Amino acid sequence: MMKWLLPESVADALPDEAARLETLRRRLLDLYQAHGYELVQPPLIEYLDSLLTGAGREMDLRTFKLVDQGSGRTLGVRADMTAQVARIDAHLLNRAGVVRLCYCHSVLHAQPADMQASREPFQLGAEIYGYADLAADLEIVRLAAATLQAAGAPAARIDLGHMGIFRTLMTLAGINGEGEENFFKLLQRKDIPALEAETADWRPELRAAMLALPRLYGDRTVLAKAREVLPKVPAIHKALDDLDALISQASDLPLYLDLSDLRGYHYHSGIVFAGYCQGRSAAMVLGGRYDGVGAAFGRARPATGFSLDIRELCQLATLPLAPAAIFAAALPVDANTDARDARAQAIQRLREQGERVIDALPGEMQTPGVNDVLYSGSVCDRVLVLMQGKWIVQAS
Amino acid sequence: MMKWLLPESVADALPDEAARLETLRRRLLDLYQAHGYELVQPPLIEYLDSLLTGAGREMDLRTFKLVDQGSGRTLGVRADMTAQVARIDAHLLNRAGVVRLCYCHSVLHAQPADMQASREPFQLGAEIYGYADLAADLEIVRLAAATLQAAGAPAARIDLGHMGIFRTLMTLAGINGEGEENFFKLLQRKDIPALEAETADWRPELRAAMLALPRLYGDRTVLAKAREVLPKVPAIHKALDDLDALISQASDLPLYLDLSDLRGYHYHSGIVFAGYCQGRSAAMVLGGRYDGVGAAFGRARPATGFSLDIRELCQLATLPLAPAAIFAAALPVDANTDARDARAQAIQRLREQGERVIDALPGEMQTPGVNDVLYSGSVCDRVLVLMQGKWIVQAS
Repeated sequence: MMKWLLPESVADALPDEAARLETLRRRLLDLYQAHGYELVQPPLIEYLDSLLTGAGREMDLRTFKLVDQGSGRTLGVRADMTAQVARIDAHLLNRAGVVRLCYCHSVLHAQPADMQASREPFQLGAEIYGYADLAADLEIVRLAAATLQAAGAPAARIDLGHMGIFRTLMTLAGINGEGEENFFKLLQRKDIPALEAETADWRPELRAAMLALPRLYGDRTVLAKAREVLPKVPAIHKALDDLDALISQASDLPLYLDLSDLRGYHYHSGIVFAGYCQGRSAAMVLGGRYDGVGAAFGRARPATGFSLDIRELCQLATLPLAPAAIFAAALPVDANTDARDARAQAIQRLREQGERVIDALPGEMQTPGVNDVLYSGSVCDRVLVLMQGKWIVQAS
Repeated sequence: MMKWLLPESVADALPDEAARLETLRRRLLDLYQAHGYELVQPPLIEYLDSLLTGAGREMDLRTFKLVDQGSGRTLGVRADMTAQVARIDAHLLNRAGVVRLCYCHSVLHAQPADMQASREPFQLGAEIYGYADLAADLEIVRLAAATLQAAGAPAARIDLGHMGIFRTLMTLAGINGEGEENFFKLLQRKDIPALEAETADWRPELRAAMLALPRLYGDRTVLAKAREVLPKVPAIHKALDDLDALISQASDLPLYLDLSDLRGYHYHSGIVFAGYCQGRSAAMVLGGRYDGVGAAFGRARPATGFSLDIRELCQLATLPLAPAAIFAAALPVDANTDARDARAQAIQRLREQGERVIDALPGEMQTPGVNDVLYSGSVCDRVLVLMQGKWIVQAS
């Protein structure tokens, strides 16, 4: 008798939330369509090795595994759509020029990302393929900001980072593989004592750069500090120049820097960003450049994009309330055909005007449910009644 | 290097199909909303015993099983949303009166229903809870027909059946459990020789009724034949009366009878139906009454509804082509701020008018891809150009 219980970290979207989600989903897909982004919908399941292309162990642990009864091979339920969309660009569309794609569908996590997170994010994202220069990163950051704006939850802060800085430091220190993974984790935790211990035998300038990284966050004055303390090599120059240019060209956006933020480190390659909204401490949108993800599918292409969980955004979104419905009480069973036709036409007209009309079943009562007090959509605020031979709408 | 291969019986929806699916999805959800149906979205995964409530072994075999790392319990990926929506009605909404719900999301099948079927149907459906009488079945059959109509693929034929007839015959013959399952399969295959053998020791009238069942299909004259040959007991009278009344009240629909069609036999209880469209031999929409599914969730409620795979309907649907986009070539890098602002405003205005405008990146070429010849959405048919100081749209 406890069959109605759901597993941890998944939830139904009941009418109120589902209606808001649908409104938000349409608004954002329309925004992307207006910008020339084409919608795609990859399948929920793929062969595991396709899904985990370019992803790290974290994504592997988060992916539900299934056995394909037909082939005997291991399938995964997608935990992220980025690799799938890169596959579509690389193999299926196979266009020479720039390709803009967007998507909105459920993904599934075997383990929630954190205690509050859902195991079924409703992932919305947009990506540009085939353009290596900064202008594409700028378009993507702007579109991410426009997304939050369109939801009525404008970005309070967008933190920029650059994967090239960390990778260059690792190369200069001769560290790779598990060692790099270890430094990545220490930086994510901003664990200064451990970083001090691990860099004890490094060259002094390189060590100073590594230890400075967790403190290189704030407004664009951080860039000047970074130029002082980070190694003067071309890859780092280029990264800082790109960040500088991006901030200059989007002076209308609340852009900040956080040079030790390495989320998405397993596949990101260039500028990365995290957008925050008022009312939520965790990032709402994550994005960045991930050139080369398509290589596993036979075609390495520059790529940059962002994604978010539209259910999380929906919680902060400002959306119009769904209009309440009109309740059209049923006619008596002995009503004649003309009366029935007149009523049916009145209902049809109202629906064509965009109204929600409940064509009541004989004996159906207008009874909002006990759980519905806060949900306007299930409550009828008007009735359709026959007055002096005409069907009219009245407050109920 | 074969990582782009997908498992059998799943497929990407590329831009052309995805755009059509999105158009059709919105149109049909708007139709249900206008009729007062509230959208819900249950989770992709649930505890297996919740998902398989009221379902048969067939659904069990079709459901992908997962182990929940947190609880150690077995989860299923939903293969159908009917039980989930019944759970929402029974437990979460818990309203006293009539509840109308609709849904549209992916379900996953471990094995495809047949060689042509997808393992990831995009299931769209609508249900009425809390109303036991025929008027609800009529509303549901009408809404299913309106669904096909709205897709531009009107129903060529809707076959009606009634689960009560088969169940009453089984009761009268004293057969249940595995025996009933066996007769169900023989009827599904219309295997007359086997039916003759299995009913050899039955009472002659009952045997004649059982053997007549596979031939009771066609227009409403079938009802008169059925009244002759089927046992004269109240349950069968009521079933035939209901079918008769439904056909009378929906004389504008192409309704036919097929009294041995028992699809959904595991949970259906009353009138069932299958809608067919021109251009496809398999049924497009399946529906019927399934009173009592909510019992497992603590609240047995009358229920009737239908569902379909919107990807299958999309193949036959008549939908407007997405308008081609406008290509706004990038300005030279040395263009001044005024020129940039004027161009940005022109793009913004066009987007507000509903146009798709590609704000080209510096150097981006207008290059339709090799696979795109049939897809208007990715092709720009106009360009935004500066003529005598004004931004205007021209054919490209």
